[in-house]
Amino acid sequence: MLTRIDHIGIACRDLEATVDFYSRTYGFQVFHTEVNQEQGVREAMLRINGTDDGGASYLQLLEPIREDSAVAKWLAKNGEGVHHIAFGTADVDADSEAIRDKGVRVLYDEPRRGSMDSRITFLHPKDCHGVLTELVTAADPDTASH
Amino acid sequence: MLTRIDHIGIACRDLEATVDFYSRTYGFQVFHTEVNQEQGVREAMLRINGTDDGGASYLQLLEPIREDSAVAKWLAKNGEGVHHIAFGTADVDADSEAIRDKGVRVLYDEPRRGSMDSRITFLHPKDCHGVLTELVTAADPDTASH
Repeated sequence: MLTRIDHIGIACRDLEATVDFYSRTYGFQVFHTEVNQEQGVREAMLRINGTDDGGASYLQLLEPIREDSAVAKWLAKNGEGVHHIAFGTADVDADSEAIRDKGVRVLYDEPRRGSMDSRITFLHPKDCHGVLTELVTAADPDTASH
Repeated sequence: MLTRIDHIGIACRDLEATVDFYSRTYGFQVFHTEVNQEQGVREAMLRINGTDDGGASYLQLLEPIREDSAVAKWLAKNGEGVHHIAFGTADVDADSEAIRDKGVRVLYDEPRRGSMDSRITFLHPKDCHGVLTELVTAADPDTASH
């Protein structure tokens, strides 16, 4: 069951400049940074609020590190902006199977590694009214809520 | 101070079909519907989770009711997808003034009426790394959290 807005994924060309914008303009702080080689991105997670399922909602700022990454291609086509939205669940495996059974294309056969050692999958935007949609299970409840 | 992701605004061509997708696929329920004549949209709010500031996070599904509305023009250019993101604050007036003073264009001179009698304003996407950004103060804490 999807129990929270886990994050909003925002594609940007310059991670430091975009972090600086969110920090200066709104006071949002960087909670976590990492490089995800498989996804081909550098990212910063800004924690916005806690959620009543014991997790949290973040902005995920994404800068591509390779021209052949999905985010680089998306940026070339669309420019900077909202790249995807993500819902949090306690069981990404069960939810992605149930959603696949409803006829929505799930992009990975098995969930892969996401931010902060979470397990993630994506749903095809053409099956979701144009919205690239991610499902996330946090590695550890403490990671999402501390 | 911005204390939550208040909602993700999603533009769609057929509100009932899109509500049906979110309900069938994820089990999300309609919390509220309304027509906003000034914004030129019909909308459905799907409540996803409560937030630790006493509010909640929603998906806001938006269908234009006029061809000259901002959402209709956006749909014609972009197709269905994420139209804007919104942060919740206890004081949209103070925050929009402070953000204007930092050089970000605020689209309204004074906040206007948003969903569920909230007061809202928008920030220019070109000043926000491509993200049309809304600030929201709920009408009543009970409205956002019940």
